[in-house]
Amino acid sequence: MTTPRPAELKNFAVHTMTNKPWSLAECCDRYAAAGFGGISVWRNVIEPIGVDEAARIVKGSGLSVPALVRGGFFVSADNAKRQAATDDNKRCIDEAAALGAEMVVLVVGAEPGTPLDEARRQVAEGIGACMDHARANSVRLAIEPLHPMYAADKSCVNRIAEAREICATLGDPLVGVAVDVYHVWWDPDLATEIELLGREDRLFGFHVCDWRVNTRHLLTDRGLMGEGCIDIARIRAMVEKAGFTGLNEVEVFSEEHWAEDQDAYLATIADACLKRS
Amino acid sequence: MTTPRPAELKNFAVHTMTNKPWSLAECCDRYAAAGFGGISVWRNVIEPIGVDEAARIVKGSGLSVPALVRGGFFVSADNAKRQAATDDNKRCIDEAAALGAEMVVLVVGAEPGTPLDEARRQVAEGIGACMDHARANSVRLAIEPLHPMYAADKSCVNRIAEAREICATLGDPLVGVAVDVYHVWWDPDLATEIELLGREDRLFGFHVCDWRVNTRHLLTDRGLMGEGCIDIARIRAMVEKAGFTGLNEVEVFSEEHWAEDQDAYLATIADACLKRS
Repeated sequence: MTTPRPAELKNFAVHTMTNKPWSLAECCDRYAAAGFGGISVWRNVIEPIGVDEAARIVKGSGLSVPALVRGGFFVSADNAKRQAATDDNKRCIDEAAALGAEMVVLVVGAEPGTPLDEARRQVAEGIGACMDHARANSVRLAIEPLHPMYAADKSCVNRIAEAREICATLGDPLVGVAVDVYHVWWDPDLATEIELLGREDRLFGFHVCDWRVNTRHLLTDRGLMGEGCIDIARIRAMVEKAGFTGLNEVEVFSEEHWAEDQDAYLATIADACLKRS
Repeated sequence: MTTPRPAELKNFAVHTMTNKPWSLAECCDRYAAAGFGGISVWRNVIEPIGVDEAARIVKGSGLSVPALVRGGFFVSADNAKRQAATDDNKRCIDEAAALGAEMVVLVVGAEPGTPLDEARRQVAEGIGACMDHARANSVRLAIEPLHPMYAADKSCVNRIAEAREICATLGDPLVGVAVDVYHVWWDPDLATEIELLGREDRLFGFHVCDWRVNTRHLLTDRGLMGEGCIDIARIRAMVEKAGFTGLNEVEVFSEEHWAEDQDAYLATIADACLKRS
Protein backbone atom coordinates (compact mmCIF):
# COMPACT_ATOMS: atom_id res chain seq x y z
CA MET A 1 0.00 0.00 0.00
CA THR A 2 3.01 2.31 0.09
CA THR A 3 3.46 2.26 -3.67
CA PRO A 4 2.28 5.64 -4.90
CA ARG A 5 -0.65 5.27 -7.24
CA PRO A 6 -0.39 6.81 -10.68
CA ALA A 7 -2.06 10.18 -10.94
CA GLU A 8 -4.39 8.71 -13.52
CA LEU A 9 -6.45 7.07 -10.79
CA LYS A 10 -7.58 10.56 -9.84
CA ASN A 11 -9.75 10.43 -12.97
CA PHE A 12 -11.85 7.67 -11.43
CA ALA A 13 -14.57 7.65 -8.81
CA VAL A 14 -16.10 4.57 -7.23
CA HIS A 15 -19.77 4.05 -6.42
CA THR A 16 -20.26 2.95 -2.83
CA MET A 17 -22.54 0.15 -4.12
CA THR A 18 -19.49 -1.34 -5.84
CA ASN A 19 -18.21 -2.19 -2.36
CA LYS A 20 -21.58 -2.95 -0.88
CA PRO A 21 -20.23 -4.54 2.33
CA TRP A 22 -18.53 -1.26 3.33
CA SER A 23 -20.00 1.68 5.23
CA LEU A 24 -19.64 5.19 3.83
CA ALA A 25 -16.71 5.85 6.18
CA GLU A 26 -14.96 2.68 5.03
CA CYS A 27 -15.53 3.57 1.39
CA CYS A 28 -14.16 7.11 1.88
CA ASP A 29 -11.09 5.92 3.77
CA ARG A 30 -10.22 3.20 1.30
CA TYR A 31 -10.95 5.13 -1.91
CA ALA A 32 -8.88 8.10 -0.73
CA ALA A 33 -6.01 5.87 0.46
CA ALA A 34 -6.00 4.00 -2.86
CA GLY A 35 -5.70 7.25 -4.78
CA PHE A 36 -9.11 7.48 -6.42
CA GLY A 37 -10.32 10.96 -7.22
CA GLY A 38 -13.93 10.62 -6.18
CA ILE A 39 -16.82 8.76 -4.65
CA SER A 40 -20.40 8.48 -5.81
CA VAL A 41 -22.63 7.96 -2.85
CA TRP A 42 -25.67 5.67 -2.77
CA ARG A 43 -28.46 6.67 -0.43
CA ASN A 44 -28.41 3.34 1.43
CA VAL A 45 -25.07 4.25 3.07
CA ILE A 46 -26.43 7.62 4.18
CA GLU A 47 -29.58 6.17 5.71
CA PRO A 48 -28.03 4.60 8.85
CA ILE A 49 -25.97 7.70 9.79
CA GLY A 50 -27.99 10.65 8.52
CA VAL A 51 -27.03 13.21 5.94
CA ASP A 52 -25.10 15.58 8.25
CA GLU A 53 -22.74 12.86 9.39
CA ALA A 54 -22.48 11.58 5.82
CA ALA A 55 -21.56 15.05 4.59
CA ARG A 56 -18.92 15.39 7.35
CA ILE A 57 -17.35 12.05 6.37
CA VAL A 58 -17.37 12.74 2.65
CA LYS A 59 -16.00 16.27 2.97
CA GLY A 60 -13.29 15.08 5.35
CA SER A 61 -12.09 12.55 2.79
CA GLY A 62 -11.02 15.10 0.22
CA LEU A 63 -12.77 13.04 -2.47
CA SER A 64 -14.90 14.78 -5.03
CA VAL A 65 -18.49 13.59 -5.38
CA PRO A 66 -19.75 13.28 -8.95
CA ALA A 67 -23.10 11.82 -7.98
CA LEU A 68 -25.65 10.96 -5.38
CA VAL A 69 -27.38 7.76 -6.43
CA ARG A 70 -30.26 7.54 -6.93
CA GLY A 71 -33.43 9.52 -7.44
CA GLY A 72 -36.16 8.91 -9.97
CA PHE A 73 -38.95 6.28 -9.99
CA PHE A 74 -41.40 8.86 -11.26
CA VAL A 75 -43.76 6.44 -13.03
CA SER A 76 -47.09 5.40 -11.56
CA ALA A 77 -50.72 5.26 -12.64
CA ASP A 78 -51.45 6.60 -9.13
CA ASN A 79 -51.30 10.40 -8.76
CA ALA A 80 -50.45 10.23 -5.05
CA LYS A 81 -47.50 7.93 -5.74
CA ARG A 82 -46.21 10.28 -8.42
CA GLN A 83 -46.45 13.19 -5.96
CA ALA A 84 -44.62 11.13 -3.33
CA ALA A 85 -41.88 10.42 -5.89
CA THR A 86 -41.49 14.13 -6.60
CA ASP A 87 -41.23 14.86 -2.87
CA ASP A 88 -38.62 12.15 -2.44
CA ASN A 89 -36.60 13.49 -5.34
CA LYS A 90 -36.53 16.90 -3.69
CA ARG A 91 -35.16 15.31 -0.51
CA CYS A 92 -32.62 13.57 -2.70
CA ILE A 93 -31.57 16.93 -4.14
CA ASP A 94 -31.19 18.27 -0.58
CA GLU A 95 -28.91 15.37 0.28
CA ALA A 96 -26.86 15.91 -2.87
CA ALA A 97 -26.41 19.57 -1.96
CA ALA A 98 -25.37 18.65 1.58
CA LEU A 99 -22.77 16.20 0.28
CA GLY A 100 -21.52 18.56 -2.40
CA ALA A 101 -22.51 16.09 -5.11
CA GLU A 102 -22.56 17.50 -8.64
CA MET A 103 -25.61 15.56 -9.72
CA VAL A 104 -28.38 13.23 -8.73
CA VAL A 105 -28.55 10.16 -10.95
CA LEU A 106 -32.12 9.35 -11.93
CA VAL A 107 -33.37 5.83 -12.51
CA VAL A 108 -36.58 7.15 -13.98
CA GLY A 109 -38.94 4.24 -13.34
CA ALA A 110 -41.44 2.11 -15.23
CA GLU A 111 -44.55 0.23 -14.28
CA PRO A 112 -46.14 -2.89 -15.74
CA GLY A 113 -49.38 -1.80 -17.36
CA THR A 114 -48.27 1.76 -18.04
CA PRO A 115 -47.25 2.06 -21.71
CA LEU A 116 -43.64 3.12 -22.07
CA ASP A 117 -44.45 6.33 -23.95
CA GLU A 118 -46.95 7.38 -21.27
CA ALA A 119 -44.32 6.47 -18.67
CA ARG A 120 -41.80 8.74 -20.37
CA ARG A 121 -44.37 11.55 -20.31
CA GLN A 122 -44.73 11.05 -16.54
CA VAL A 123 -40.95 11.10 -16.16
CA ALA A 124 -40.66 14.44 -17.95
CA GLU A 125 -43.43 15.82 -15.75
CA GLY A 126 -41.84 14.46 -12.58
CA ILE A 127 -38.40 15.85 -13.36
CA GLY A 128 -40.00 19.15 -14.38
CA ALA A 129 -41.62 19.41 -10.96
CA CYS A 130 -38.17 19.15 -9.33
CA MET A 131 -36.36 21.73 -11.45
CA ASP A 132 -36.94 24.77 -9.25
CA HIS A 133 -35.61 22.82 -6.29
CA ALA A 134 -32.61 21.61 -8.29
CA ARG A 135 -31.84 25.16 -9.41
CA ALA A 136 -32.12 26.55 -5.89
CA ASN A 137 -29.59 23.93 -4.77
CA SER A 138 -27.34 24.06 -7.85
CA VAL A 139 -27.65 20.32 -8.31
CA ARG A 140 -27.76 18.74 -11.74
CA LEU A 141 -30.15 15.91 -12.59
CA ALA A 142 -28.80 13.12 -14.78
CA ILE A 143 -31.18 10.72 -16.50
CA GLU A 144 -29.53 7.31 -16.73
CA PRO A 145 -30.88 5.23 -19.62
CA LEU A 146 -31.09 1.64 -18.38
CA HIS A 147 -30.66 -1.48 -20.52
CA PRO A 148 -33.88 -2.63 -22.23
CA MET A 149 -33.96 -5.65 -19.91
CA TYR A 150 -35.09 -3.20 -17.20
CA ALA A 151 -38.00 -1.76 -19.18
CA ALA A 152 -40.65 -3.73 -17.28
CA ASP A 153 -40.45 -1.96 -13.93
CA LYS A 154 -37.24 0.04 -13.56
CA SER A 155 -36.79 2.37 -16.48
CA CYS A 156 -38.90 3.44 -19.44
CA VAL A 157 -35.80 5.19 -20.80
CA ASN A 158 -33.69 2.49 -22.43
CA ARG A 159 -31.66 4.42 -24.97
CA ILE A 160 -29.82 7.73 -24.93
CA ALA A 161 -32.23 8.92 -27.65
CA GLU A 162 -35.23 8.91 -25.28
CA ALA A 163 -33.21 10.53 -22.50
CA ARG A 164 -32.23 13.32 -24.90
CA GLU A 165 -35.85 13.73 -25.89
CA ILE A 166 -36.87 14.31 -22.26
CA CYS A 167 -33.99 16.79 -21.86
CA ALA A 168 -35.20 18.64 -24.94
CA THR A 169 -38.78 18.72 -23.62
CA LEU A 170 -37.59 20.22 -20.34
CA GLY A 171 -35.08 22.56 -21.94
CA ASP A 172 -33.21 23.19 -18.70
CA PRO A 173 -29.40 23.20 -18.62
CA LEU A 174 -29.47 21.38 -15.27
CA VAL A 175 -30.96 18.23 -16.85
CA GLY A 176 -28.66 15.86 -18.68
CA VAL A 177 -27.67 12.23 -19.09
CA ALA A 178 -25.44 9.72 -17.32
CA VAL A 179 -24.05 7.20 -19.81
CA ASP A 180 -23.30 3.79 -18.34
CA VAL A 181 -21.51 1.44 -20.71
CA TYR A 182 -23.44 -1.51 -19.26
CA HIS A 183 -26.75 -0.12 -20.44
CA VAL A 184 -25.88 1.32 -23.83
CA TRP A 185 -22.96 -0.63 -25.30
CA TRP A 186 -25.23 -2.62 -27.67
CA ASP A 187 -26.92 0.48 -29.14
CA PRO A 188 -26.23 0.76 -32.89
CA ASP A 189 -26.70 4.54 -32.58
CA LEU A 190 -24.25 4.93 -29.69
CA ALA A 191 -21.58 7.03 -31.40
CA THR A 192 -24.11 9.44 -32.86
CA GLU A 193 -26.08 9.71 -29.63
CA ILE A 194 -22.99 10.47 -27.54
CA GLU A 195 -21.88 13.07 -30.07
CA LEU A 196 -25.31 14.72 -29.84
CA LEU A 197 -25.18 14.64 -26.03
CA GLY A 198 -21.91 16.52 -26.18
CA ARG A 199 -23.20 19.06 -28.64
CA GLU A 200 -26.27 19.67 -26.46
CA ASP A 201 -24.20 19.96 -23.23
CA ARG A 202 -26.06 17.03 -21.72
CA LEU A 203 -23.25 14.58 -21.08
CA PHE A 204 -23.13 14.74 -17.28
CA GLY A 205 -21.80 11.34 -16.24
CA PHE A 206 -19.85 8.35 -17.51
CA HIS A 207 -20.12 5.02 -15.70
CA VAL A 208 -17.89 2.03 -16.33
CA CYS A 209 -18.16 -1.69 -15.63
CA ASP A 210 -18.52 -4.66 -18.00
CA TRP A 211 -21.06 -7.08 -19.46
CA ARG A 212 -20.26 -10.68 -18.55
CA VAL A 213 -20.79 -12.87 -21.62
CA ASN A 214 -22.69 -15.47 -19.62
CA THR A 215 -24.61 -13.17 -17.36
CA ARG A 216 -26.16 -15.16 -14.52
CA HIS A 217 -28.47 -12.56 -13.05
CA LEU A 218 -30.21 -9.53 -14.50
CA LEU A 219 -29.29 -7.23 -11.60
CA THR A 220 -26.25 -8.42 -9.70
CA ASP A 221 -23.83 -10.04 -12.12
CA ARG A 222 -21.97 -7.17 -13.70
CA GLY A 223 -18.33 -7.54 -14.49
CA LEU A 224 -15.43 -5.33 -13.53
CA MET A 225 -13.86 -3.60 -16.52
CA GLY A 226 -12.05 -6.28 -18.52
CA GLU A 227 -14.21 -9.16 -17.31
CA GLY A 228 -16.73 -8.85 -20.12
CA CYS A 229 -17.24 -8.01 -23.76
CA ILE A 230 -17.69 -4.23 -23.75
CA ASP A 231 -15.14 -2.24 -25.72
CA ILE A 232 -14.89 0.39 -22.98
CA ALA A 233 -11.91 2.17 -24.53
CA ARG A 234 -13.96 2.77 -27.67
CA ILE A 235 -16.88 4.23 -25.73
CA ARG A 236 -14.53 6.31 -23.56
CA ALA A 237 -13.03 7.75 -26.74
CA MET A 238 -16.55 8.71 -27.85
CA VAL A 239 -17.37 10.55 -24.61
CA GLU A 240 -13.99 12.28 -24.57
CA LYS A 241 -14.45 13.35 -28.18
CA ALA A 242 -17.84 14.70 -27.14
CA GLY A 243 -16.08 16.92 -24.60
CA PHE A 244 -16.60 14.96 -21.40
CA THR A 245 -13.98 15.84 -18.78
CA GLY A 246 -15.60 14.43 -15.63
CA LEU A 247 -14.56 11.43 -13.59
CA ASN A 248 -15.12 7.90 -14.82
CA GLU A 249 -17.40 6.32 -12.24
CA VAL A 250 -16.90 2.65 -11.42
CA GLU A 251 -20.29 1.09 -10.74
CA VAL A 252 -20.32 -2.70 -10.43
CA PHE A 253 -23.16 -4.70 -8.87
CA SER A 254 -21.84 -8.19 -8.37
CA GLU A 255 -22.75 -10.81 -5.82
CA GLU A 256 -19.51 -12.51 -6.76
CA HIS A 257 -17.34 -9.48 -6.04
CA TRP A 258 -19.31 -8.45 -2.95
CA ALA A 259 -18.42 -11.84 -1.46
CA GLU A 260 -14.68 -11.18 -1.84
CA ASP A 261 -12.29 -9.45 0.54
CA GLN A 262 -13.13 -5.85 -0.27
CA ASP A 263 -9.60 -4.49 0.20
CA ALA A 264 -8.18 -6.99 -2.27
CA TYR A 265 -11.10 -6.29 -4.59
CA LEU A 266 -10.47 -2.54 -4.47
CA ALA A 267 -6.85 -3.13 -5.50
CA THR A 268 -8.19 -5.14 -8.47
CA ILE A 269 -10.57 -2.30 -9.30
CA ALA A 270 -7.68 0.16 -9.27
CA ASP A 271 -5.69 -2.08 -11.61
CA ALA A 272 -8.67 -2.37 -13.96
CA CYS A 273 -8.98 1.42 -14.04
CA LEU A 274 -5.31 1.91 -14.76
CA LYS A 275 -5.42 -0.55 -17.64
CA ARG A 276 -8.03 1.82 -19.08
CA SER A 277 -9.77 -1.27 -20.40
CA MET B 1 -60.76 -33.09 -24.55
CA THR B 2 -64.02 -33.67 -26.44
CA THR B 3 -64.98 -30.01 -26.34
CA PRO B 4 -64.44 -28.65 -29.84
CA ARG B 5 -61.83 -25.93 -29.87
CA PRO B 6 -62.79 -22.56 -31.34
CA ALA B 7 -61.64 -22.11 -34.91
CA GLU B 8 -59.50 -19.20 -33.76
CA LEU B 9 -56.88 -21.61 -32.44
CA LYS B 10 -56.14 -22.45 -36.06
CA ASN B 11 -54.40 -19.05 -36.21
CA PHE B 12 -51.75 -20.24 -33.77
CA ALA B 13 -48.73 -22.48 -34.14
CA VAL B 14 -46.60 -23.80 -31.30
CA HIS B 15 -42.81 -24.11 -31.30
CA THR B 16 -41.69 -27.58 -30.29
CA MET B 17 -39.25 -25.96 -27.84
CA THR B 18 -42.27 -24.64 -25.92
CA ASN B 19 -42.95 -28.25 -24.93
CA LYS B 20 -39.32 -29.25 -24.64
CA PRO B 21 -40.02 -32.59 -22.89
CA TRP B 22 -41.98 -33.86 -25.91
CA SER B 23 -40.68 -35.58 -29.03
CA LEU B 24 -41.71 -34.30 -32.46
CA ALA B 25 -44.35 -37.02 -32.73
CA GLU B 26 -45.80 -36.08 -29.34
CA CYS B 27 -45.86 -32.39 -30.28
CA CYS B 28 -47.61 -33.12 -33.60
CA ASP B 29 -50.23 -35.40 -32.01
CA ARG B 30 -51.03 -33.02 -29.19
CA TYR B 31 -51.01 -29.77 -31.18
CA ALA B 32 -53.29 -31.26 -33.85
CA ALA B 33 -55.64 -32.78 -31.26
CA ALA B 34 -55.83 -29.49 -29.37
CA GLY B 35 -56.83 -27.66 -32.54
CA PHE B 36 -53.73 -25.58 -33.23
CA GLY B 37 -53.15 -24.67 -36.86
CA GLY B 38 -49.42 -25.21 -37.01
CA ILE B 39 -46.12 -26.32 -35.57
CA SER B 40 -42.72 -24.68 -35.76
CA VAL B 41 -40.06 -27.31 -35.57
CA TRP B 42 -36.77 -26.96 -33.73
CA ARG B 43 -33.84 -28.92 -35.10
CA ASN B 44 -33.18 -30.71 -31.79
CA VAL B 45 -36.36 -32.79 -32.26
CA ILE B 46 -35.33 -33.76 -35.80
CA GLU B 47 -31.85 -34.83 -34.80
CA PRO B 48 -32.73 -38.14 -33.03
CA ILE B 49 -35.04 -39.38 -35.83
CA GLY B 50 -33.63 -37.88 -39.01
CA VAL B 51 -35.26 -35.49 -41.41
CA ASP B 52 -37.16 -38.07 -43.51
CA GLU B 53 -38.95 -39.50 -40.50
CA ALA B 54 -39.52 -35.96 -39.18
CA ALA B 55 -41.08 -34.92 -42.48
CA ARG B 56 -43.31 -38.00 -42.48
CA ILE B 57 -44.55 -37.21 -38.95
CA VAL B 58 -45.14 -33.52 -39.63
CA LYS B 59 -46.92 -34.08 -42.94
CA GLY B 60 -49.10 -36.78 -41.40
CA SER B 61 -50.28 -34.36 -38.72
CA GLY B 62 -52.01 -31.99 -41.10
CA LEU B 63 -50.37 -29.08 -39.25
CA SER B 64 -48.88 -26.27 -41.27
CA VAL B 65 -45.23 -25.44 -40.59
CA PRO B 66 -44.43 -21.74 -40.43
CA ALA B 67 -40.81 -22.22 -39.45
CA LEU B 68 -37.85 -24.44 -38.97
CA VAL B 69 -35.85 -23.14 -36.01
CA ARG B 70 -33.06 -22.25 -36.19
CA GLY B 71 -30.30 -21.32 -38.56
CA GLY B 72 -27.88 -18.44 -38.32
CA PHE B 73 -24.78 -18.02 -36.11
CA PHE B 74 -22.88 -16.48 -38.99
CA VAL B 75 -20.47 -14.37 -36.90
CA SER B 76 -16.87 -15.35 -36.34
CA ALA B 77 -13.45 -13.79 -36.71
CA ASP B 78 -12.44 -17.19 -38.14
CA ASN B 79 -13.04 -17.63 -41.89
CA ALA B 80 -13.35 -21.41 -41.61
CA LYS B 81 -16.02 -21.09 -38.94
CA ARG B 82 -17.97 -18.66 -41.09
CA GLN B 83 -17.80 -21.11 -43.99
CA ALA B 84 -18.98 -23.93 -41.71
CA ALA B 85 -21.91 -21.75 -40.63
CA THR B 86 -22.90 -21.16 -44.25
CA ASP B 87 -22.75 -24.89 -44.96
CA ASP B 88 -24.87 -25.63 -41.91
CA ASN B 89 -27.44 -23.05 -42.95
CA LYS B 90 -27.74 -24.73 -46.32
CA ARG B 91 -28.44 -28.04 -44.57
CA CYS B 92 -31.01 -26.20 -42.50
CA ILE B 93 -32.68 -24.96 -45.69
CA ASP B 94 -32.75 -28.55 -46.99
CA GLU B 95 -34.47 -29.68 -43.80
CA ALA B 96 -36.99 -26.83 -44.03
CA ALA B 97 -37.81 -27.84 -47.60
CA ALA B 98 -38.22 -31.49 -46.56
CA LEU B 99 -40.62 -30.49 -43.78
CA GLY B 100 -42.54 -28.06 -45.93
CA ALA B 101 -41.59 -25.19 -43.61
CA GLU B 102 -42.20 -21.72 -45.01
CA MET B 103 -39.10 -20.21 -43.50
CA VAL B 104 -35.91 -20.80 -41.56
CA VAL B 105 -35.64 -18.53 -38.53
CA LEU B 106 -32.16 -17.08 -38.21
CA VAL B 107 -30.53 -16.28 -34.89
CA VAL B 108 -27.76 -14.42 -36.61
CA GLY B 109 -24.96 -14.67 -34.05
CA ALA B 110 -22.48 -12.42 -32.27
CA GLU B 111 -19.03 -12.91 -30.86
CA PRO B 112 -17.26 -11.22 -27.96
CA GLY B 113 -14.46 -9.18 -29.48
CA THR B 114 -16.11 -8.72 -32.87
CA PRO B 115 -17.63 -5.23 -33.01
CA LEU B 116 -21.38 -5.37 -33.56
CA ASP B 117 -21.28 -3.46 -36.83
CA GLU B 118 -18.61 -5.78 -38.24
CA ALA B 119 -20.70 -8.71 -36.98
CA ARG B 120 -23.72 -7.39 -38.89
CA ARG B 121 -21.58 -7.15 -42.03
CA GLN B 122 -20.64 -10.83 -41.58
CA VAL B 123 -24.30 -11.72 -41.14
CA ALA B 124 -25.29 -10.02 -44.39
CA GLU B 125 -22.45 -11.85 -46.14
CA GLY B 126 -23.42 -15.20 -44.58
CA ILE B 127 -27.07 -14.89 -45.51
CA GLY B 128 -26.09 -13.71 -48.98
CA ALA B 129 -24.07 -16.89 -49.47
CA CYS B 130 -27.19 -18.96 -48.75
CA MET B 131 -29.61 -17.17 -51.06
CA ASP B 132 -29.16 -19.31 -54.17
CA HIS B 133 -29.79 -22.38 -52.06
CA ALA B 134 -32.85 -20.78 -50.44
CA ARG B 135 -34.25 -19.83 -53.85
CA ALA B 136 -33.68 -23.29 -55.27
CA ASN B 137 -35.65 -24.71 -52.36
CA SER B 138 -38.30 -21.96 -52.16
CA VAL B 139 -37.55 -21.41 -48.48
CA ARG B 140 -37.69 -17.96 -46.91
CA LEU B 141 -35.07 -16.77 -44.43
CA ALA B 142 -36.31 -14.75 -41.47
CA ILE B 143 -33.88 -12.69 -39.41
CA GLU B 144 -35.07 -12.63 -35.80
CA PRO B 145 -33.85 -9.56 -33.91
CA LEU B 146 -32.99 -10.70 -30.38
CA HIS B 147 -33.29 -8.61 -27.25
CA PRO B 148 -30.20 -6.45 -26.53
CA MET B 149 -29.39 -8.70 -23.57
CA TYR B 150 -28.24 -11.26 -26.16
CA ALA B 151 -25.85 -8.91 -27.97
CA ALA B 152 -22.73 -10.44 -26.39
CA ASP B 153 -22.72 -13.80 -28.13
CA LYS B 154 -26.09 -14.64 -29.66
CA SER B 155 -27.23 -11.82 -31.91
CA CYS B 156 -25.72 -8.62 -33.25
CA VAL B 157 -29.19 -7.71 -34.54
CA ASN B 158 -31.10 -6.34 -31.58
CA ARG B 159 -33.70 -4.13 -33.20
CA ILE B 160 -35.95 -4.48 -36.22
CA ALA B 161 -34.11 -1.48 -37.72
CA GLU B 162 -30.85 -3.41 -38.13
CA ALA B 163 -32.69 -6.46 -39.48
CA ARG B 164 -34.35 -4.27 -42.10
CA GLU B 165 -30.98 -2.81 -42.99
CA ILE B 166 -29.58 -6.26 -43.72
CA CYS B 167 -32.68 -7.08 -45.79
CA ALA B 168 -32.16 -3.89 -47.78
CA THR B 169 -28.49 -4.74 -48.34
CA LEU B 170 -29.41 -8.17 -49.70
CA GLY B 171 -32.41 -6.93 -51.66
CA ASP B 172 -33.89 -10.40 -52.04
CA PRO B 173 -37.63 -11.01 -51.54
CA LEU B 174 -36.85 -14.29 -49.75
CA VAL B 175 -35.17 -12.47 -46.82
CA GLY B 176 -37.36 -10.93 -44.14
CA VAL B 177 -37.88 -10.62 -40.41
CA ALA B 178 -39.49 -12.65 -37.63
CA VAL B 179 -40.85 -10.32 -34.95
CA ASP B 180 -40.93 -11.83 -31.47
CA VAL B 181 -42.68 -9.68 -28.88
CA TYR B 182 -40.19 -10.83 -26.23
CA HIS B 183 -37.29 -9.22 -28.05
CA VAL B 184 -38.80 -6.00 -29.34
CA TRP B 185 -41.61 -4.92 -27.00
CA TRP B 186 -39.44 -2.24 -25.34
CA ASP B 187 -38.38 -0.59 -28.64
CA PRO B 188 -39.61 3.02 -28.81
CA ASP B 189 -39.63 2.73 -32.62
CA LEU B 190 -41.68 -0.48 -32.67
CA ALA B 191 -44.83 0.84 -34.38
CA THR B 192 -42.86 2.58 -37.12
CA GLU B 193 -40.54 -0.36 -37.66
CA ILE B 194 -43.39 -2.85 -38.00
CA GLU B 195 -45.17 -0.53 -40.41
CA LEU B 196 -41.99 -0.34 -42.51
CA LEU B 197 -41.60 -4.12 -42.45
CA GLY B 198 -45.08 -4.43 -43.85
CA ARG B 199 -44.49 -1.86 -46.54
CA GLU B 200 -41.27 -3.61 -47.57
CA ASP B 201 -42.91 -7.09 -47.59
CA ARG B 202 -40.47 -8.29 -44.95
CA LEU B 203 -42.81 -9.28 -42.13
CA PHE B 204 -42.44 -13.06 -42.30
CA GLY B 205 -43.15 -14.22 -38.75
CA PHE B 206 -44.81 -13.17 -35.52
CA HIS B 207 -43.85 -14.89 -32.25
CA VAL B 208 -45.73 -14.51 -28.99
CA CYS B 209 -44.86 -15.12 -25.34
CA ASP B 210 -44.44 -12.69 -22.44
CA TRP B 211 -41.80 -10.85 -20.38
CA ARG B 212 -41.96 -11.83 -16.71
CA VAL B 213 -41.56 -8.68 -14.60
CA ASN B 214 -39.07 -10.35 -12.30
CA THR B 215 -37.18 -12.37 -14.86
CA ARG B 216 -35.02 -14.94 -13.09
CA HIS B 217 -32.91 -16.14 -16.00
CA LEU B 218 -31.81 -14.51 -19.23
CA LEU B 219 -32.62 -17.53 -21.38
CA THR B 220 -35.20 -19.80 -19.81
CA ASP B 221 -37.67 -17.72 -17.86
CA ARG B 222 -40.11 -16.45 -20.45
CA GLY B 223 -43.75 -16.14 -19.57
CA LEU B 224 -46.76 -17.51 -21.37
CA MET B 225 -48.95 -14.77 -22.86
CA GLY B 226 -50.64 -13.01 -19.94
CA GLU B 227 -47.95 -13.88 -17.39
CA GLY B 228 -45.90 -10.76 -18.02
CA CYS B 229 -46.01 -7.10 -18.91
CA ILE B 230 -46.08 -7.10 -22.73
CA ASP B 231 -49.11 -5.53 -24.35
CA ILE B 232 -49.35 -8.31 -26.93
CA ALA B 233 -52.73 -7.20 -28.28
CA ARG B 234 -51.22 -3.82 -29.13
CA ILE B 235 -48.28 -5.39 -30.99
CA ARG B 236 -50.58 -7.87 -32.74
CA ALA B 237 -52.67 -4.94 -33.95
CA MET B 238 -49.49 -3.39 -35.37
CA VAL B 239 -48.52 -6.50 -37.32
CA GLU B 240 -52.07 -7.03 -38.59
CA LYS B 241 -52.25 -3.40 -39.68
CA ALA B 242 -48.96 -4.00 -41.50
CA GLY B 243 -50.64 -6.77 -43.47
CA PHE B 244 -49.44 -9.85 -41.61
CA THR B 245 -51.78 -12.81 -42.13
CA GLY B 246 -49.57 -15.69 -40.97
CA LEU B 247 -49.90 -17.81 -37.86
CA ASN B 248 -49.04 -16.46 -34.42
CA GLU B 249 -46.23 -18.69 -33.19
CA VAL B 250 -46.12 -19.51 -29.48
CA GLU B 251 -42.48 -19.72 -28.41
CA VAL B 252 -41.90 -19.96 -24.66
CA PHE B 253 -38.63 -21.10 -23.09
CA SER B 254 -39.38 -21.71 -19.45
CA GLU B 255 -37.78 -24.09 -16.99
CA GLU B 256 -40.87 -23.56 -14.86
CA HIS B 257 -43.31 -24.61 -17.57
CA TRP B 258 -41.09 -27.42 -18.88
CA ALA B 259 -41.30 -28.96 -15.40
CA GLU B 260 -45.12 -29.10 -15.53
CA ASP B 261 -47.35 -31.81 -16.94
CA GLN B 262 -47.15 -30.95 -20.62
CA ASP B 263 -50.73 -31.92 -21.48
CA ALA B 264 -52.11 -29.62 -18.80
CA TYR B 265 -49.66 -26.93 -19.88
CA LEU B 266 -50.78 -27.19 -23.51
CA ALA B 267 -54.39 -26.65 -22.42
CA THR B 268 -53.21 -23.50 -20.60
CA ILE B 269 -51.36 -22.39 -23.74
CA ALA B 270 -54.54 -22.85 -25.79
CA ASP B 271 -56.50 -20.77 -23.28
CA ALA B 272 -53.84 -18.04 -23.38
CA CYS B 273 -54.05 -17.97 -27.19
CA LEU B 274 -57.84 -17.75 -27.18
CA LYS B 275 -57.79 -14.85 -24.73
CA ARG B 276 -55.73 -13.10 -27.43
CA SER B 277 -53.77 -11.53 -24.60
